[in-house]
Amino acid sequence: MTLELVSQNRSFGGWHKQYSHRSESTGCDMRFAVYLPPQAETGKVPVLYWLSGLTCTDENFMQKGGALKVAAKLGIAIVAPDTSPRGQGVPDDEEGAYDFGLGAGFYLNATQEPWSKHYRMFDYVVTELPKLIERHFPVTSKKAISGHSMGGHGAMTVALKSSDQYCSVSAFSPIVNPVNCPWGQKAFLNYLGNDRESWKQYDSCELMSALSPNDKKIPMLVDQGTLDNFLVDQLQTRTLEQCAEVASYPLELRYQEGYDHSYYFIASFIEDHLRFHHQYLMK
Amino acid sequence: MTLELVSQNRSFGGWHKQYSHRSESTGCDMRFAVYLPPQAETGKVPVLYWLSGLTCTDENFMQKGGALKVAAKLGIAIVAPDTSPRGQGVPDDEEGAYDFGLGAGFYLNATQEPWSKHYRMFDYVVTELPKLIERHFPVTSKKAISGHSMGGHGAMTVALKSSDQYCSVSAFSPIVNPVNCPWGQKAFLNYLGNDRESWKQYDSCELMSALSPNDKKIPMLVDQGTLDNFLVDQLQTRTLEQCAEVASYPLELRYQEGYDHSYYFIASFIEDHLRFHHQYLMK
Repeated sequence: MTLELVSQNRSFGGWHKQYSHRSESTGCDMRFAVYLPPQAETGKVPVLYWLSGLTCTDENFMQKGGALKVAAKLGIAIVAPDTSPRGQGVPDDEEGAYDFGLGAGFYLNATQEPWSKHYRMFDYVVTELPKLIERHFPVTSKKAISGHSMGGHGAMTVALKSSDQYCSVSAFSPIVNPVNCPWGQKAFLNYLGNDRESWKQYDSCELMSALSPNDKKIPMLVDQGTLDNFLVDQLQTRTLEQCAEVASYPLELRYQEGYDHSYYFIASFIEDHLRFHHQYLMK
Repeated sequence: MTLELVSQNRSFGGWHKQYSHRSESTGCDMRFAVYLPPQAETGKVPVLYWLSGLTCTDENFMQKGGALKVAAKLGIAIVAPDTSPRGQGVPDDEEGAYDFGLGAGFYLNATQEPWSKHYRMFDYVVTELPKLIERHFPVTSKKAISGHSMGGHGAMTVALKSSDQYCSVSAFSPIVNPVNCPWGQKAFLNYLGNDRESWKQYDSCELMSALSPNDKKIPMLVDQGTLDNFLVDQLQTRTLEQCAEVASYPLELRYQEGYDHSYYFIASFIEDHLRFHHQYLMK
């Protein structure tokens, strides 16, 4: 478990750093970014994990999310993994599609050839990466998770499946019901095969609906822009609304008038998300 | 003078928009970005012009600068032009170098063939673009100007040459003495020719040194990272320090310990720059 420093930048009195390391989960070198706030120089800080959307790497959120200023103020570290395995031997979509293969790992453990060897982002995000972070950086074991679009799907499914590990979860423009949308169906068919029952373990609406009254339900905040091009066909936020109501899930869902799917939207509301997580991370 | 809307994103209650238009100065289509804060929906707002560095377009600052949140709070519009002419018929460096030609207009009016027809960014930034902005958007005539690296050079030379037009000027990591550094010498030799006297009109240190005691001197703020890779060979901030002292120029120069040349540096201190400009824009 050695880390290789790829780059570092002083930022808001703390440090943004990129690292590369050999991953056991994905069987390839993985890159991630970490923001360490100034408070990490004198003590341990909690961590917000951020999962990015289709086509992204560890860089998009750190550069465009506008989160580091607030993280520096609140004393929260941010960790942003890549969105899929990459590098030599890692298969990609045959036609290089943006919504499958490289940059589109969907935060699941693939079961089908040729994907199952490397495409194991669920294990990477939930188990391997936090272990690595807690070993190498001055962080507490308190964790929150958030993400955008495919990464919103990732954050919510991870939090619903592993609710003991996270204090809170949030998402921007998440794919909430992938078993019923084109992006999700394409990915799940390829990564998980024909058995649609197996898809449900990576679907936020299905996972929420399967909760029993006594299951732990961590607080969830979701922001969705009303002018998001993907809202109707891919994101289907209304389905989440209905599932949360039936399951009495502590979901705060906000429709933001006139906002789209871009990082301009994320930056506009990321402070709310960090403050939301902060109250639970500091408990 | 018609504008074509290229894209728009709701951002912090205002709008980020990209436009394309035919430019008389540069003889080609030019793209720029404008951020209109919420206050622009009910009244006129002052404008901060932002000039970007080598290789950038109108997008880098809007996406990575972290400025829009503060602009929305203070009620300042931001206008970010491209860094050079582009498109059909616009010549580029023969080898596609990053530091000359496309993406490297150096905010001057070229006098040499084949550059003099299109590379007229000084006229574009100082005259044509503000006219266009004041005609099409709800802005006052109050203007400030800022920029990064080559754009810091641009902001400072523009403000020193046209001090009647701007309330204040600031820069991150500016090229302060281009006649004496490799980036500047390459660009000026090609754009302006062999006569080194002609270069001085686009050199902040030369312009500052040529001021007479009665010339208008608008307030200037400069931030420079101490771990900037380009500090010693290209930026030469100490020379500016000396010239400002001799000229009694109202320069606030801050060396920021451990910061580099990146947008992580800009984002960390952009709020200070916006508040600096705000006090003069609102006078």
